[in-house]
Amino acid sequence: MPAFPSAKLIAVDWGTTRLRARLVDGAGVVLAEAVSDRGIGPLNGAGHEDAFESLVATWPLVPAIMTGMVGSRQGWREAAYVPCPADVAGIGGALTRFTTAKGRAVAIIPGLRVGDVNVMRGEETQIIGLMDAEASFSGTVIMPGTHSKWARVEGGTTIDFASFMSGELFALLAKHSLLRHSVSDADAMGDVSSSADFRAGVEYARAVPFAATLFTVRVRQLLTGTTPEANLDYLSGLVIGGEIASATAMDLARGSLRIIAAGPLARAYGAALSVFGLSAEVRDGDAMALAGLRHVARAVGWLGA
Amino acid sequence: MPAFPSAKLIAVDWGTTRLRARLVDGAGVVLAEAVSDRGIGPLNGAGHEDAFESLVATWPLVPAIMTGMVGSRQGWREAAYVPCPADVAGIGGALTRFTTAKGRAVAIIPGLRVGDVNVMRGEETQIIGLMDAEASFSGTVIMPGTHSKWARVEGGTTIDFASFMSGELFALLAKHSLLRHSVSDADAMGDVSSSADFRAGVEYARAVPFAATLFTVRVRQLLTGTTPEANLDYLSGLVIGGEIASATAMDLARGSLRIIAAGPLARAYGAALSVFGLSAEVRDGDAMALAGLRHVARAVGWLGA
Repeated sequence: MPAFPSAKLIAVDWGTTRLRARLVDGAGVVLAEAVSDRGIGPLNGAGHEDAFESLVATWPLVPAIMTGMVGSRQGWREAAYVPCPADVAGIGGALTRFTTAKGRAVAIIPGLRVGDVNVMRGEETQIIGLMDAEASFSGTVIMPGTHSKWARVEGGTTIDFASFMSGELFALLAKHSLLRHSVSDADAMGDVSSSADFRAGVEYARAVPFAATLFTVRVRQLLTGTTPEANLDYLSGLVIGGEIASATAMDLARGSLRIIAAGPLARAYGAALSVFGLSAEVRDGDAMALAGLRHVARAVGWLGA
Repeated sequence: MPAFPSAKLIAVDWGTTRLRARLVDGAGVVLAEAVSDRGIGPLNGAGHEDAFESLVATWPLVPAIMTGMVGSRQGWREAAYVPCPADVAGIGGALTRFTTAKGRAVAIIPGLRVGDVNVMRGEETQIIGLMDAEASFSGTVIMPGTHSKWARVEGGTTIDFASFMSGELFALLAKHSLLRHSVSDADAMGDVSSSADFRAGVEYARAVPFAATLFTVRVRQLLTGTTPEANLDYLSGLVIGGEIASATAMDLARGSLRIIAAGPLARAYGAALSVFGLSAEVRDGDAMALAGLRHVARAVGWLGA
């Protein structure tokens, strides 16, 4: 008897650096999981079918539904961005579907765009995952990271979103700018959520436009002898606080707030939001991606209802 | 007869990367000029006297007045920051003065600070140079560059200023961030002041908080096929426009405006200001530094009035 006789679907989160596949049954229960470092970045535009099939070679030949950079121009097949406002029906109707050489049905979830100024790819599936448990959610979904997204969601529809290069900016400033002499190793940063220096950074970023805040990291070192460790927390507070200040100025923080993240990053955003008098419930990113993949699979008839 | 019998002073602009000395007579006329790459950065805290004296070895043993990083902790002698508001008398009274082994009198002009949040070193001398020709200047002095400064000046006194890491941010984003795939070589950027893409960047930065603008560089490439060259101009517009938007939000752009810069950089700031309905007269940075050095030298009796 073949392994996993109850398997119905492979749910795939395939980003720039990582390929993650989960085998699920008709109820959406995870039967097996496999992870590879053959992300869309390292593959460099070729070898997607081999990367995927070799990862799941011992699993049954069930359909696969995929989200993330796998649908980008450098991915397996391009899945064109769906314009906002977009709901699950709109996204489900725009899947890129094909059948592989060995006969496996594949569907790639498209990203979203706002006009010609914003795109997301992968986060739309996390938003669907959030709505899977909270069908009537109205508010803002904050997805922190290298390139943070703030999405306005109303009654199952993603209306609008903005992008912030916060994680990347923080790393660039801490490692490659003049400020590197004033902060400690960013890769060794711990949980900043209860750091007074982190809070001071958020508070300064709430009061002063972001572009005018950054040089103060150096000034604190020069004039007040702030330690590199304390200044790293402060810089993190400036960058995250600057993101929140910008998002609130754009009226993006309305209604209920959710943070899709985990661990220290989720706690840092929670602590920073509290400085602005805001609070958010936290949802796990992997769990939301899986829930979103299952939700779309049900919508297209690949899983039971 | 020794060379330069009419020489009275050496005016020295000694920054991180460059040492520039000008020999002047009692009326402030430049008799000779010498430049070295032994900036405060490469010297790394030692050898200042040799670097200076070897550069001016053929000149007379007249007093030297200096501005820039030469007064920093890594400089020849530290000249502590003078708190704003500060006028020429306050700055002239806080010079760091000493006599070298060979008997040369040296004075280093101190930088300025605003509380514990901002410092400048070198720009204060350019501001004095501006006021040398416009004693009653009231308005804002914009000094663009790696770390731009916007200084509020009223009747001979520098009241307040802000710092923007614009030049450094632009280079980091263009060369080291995800955006590097969407822009052409930043070192080859030409005059952007009449570029429609530069203007589009400034306009977007006027409308949207800076932190939320940067990712659009990538989106333009993905969705509209913007060329890397056009996108580099656009990124420059975002960064300079974000600086101006932040400065105006901080009410730093009031009264008459002056840009202290030259060439394409001065023209880019002029073009960006015009998008905000602002205009500024341009003053050359080297000329302002020299005028400021002479002004302080006169104030301390080292040059005729």
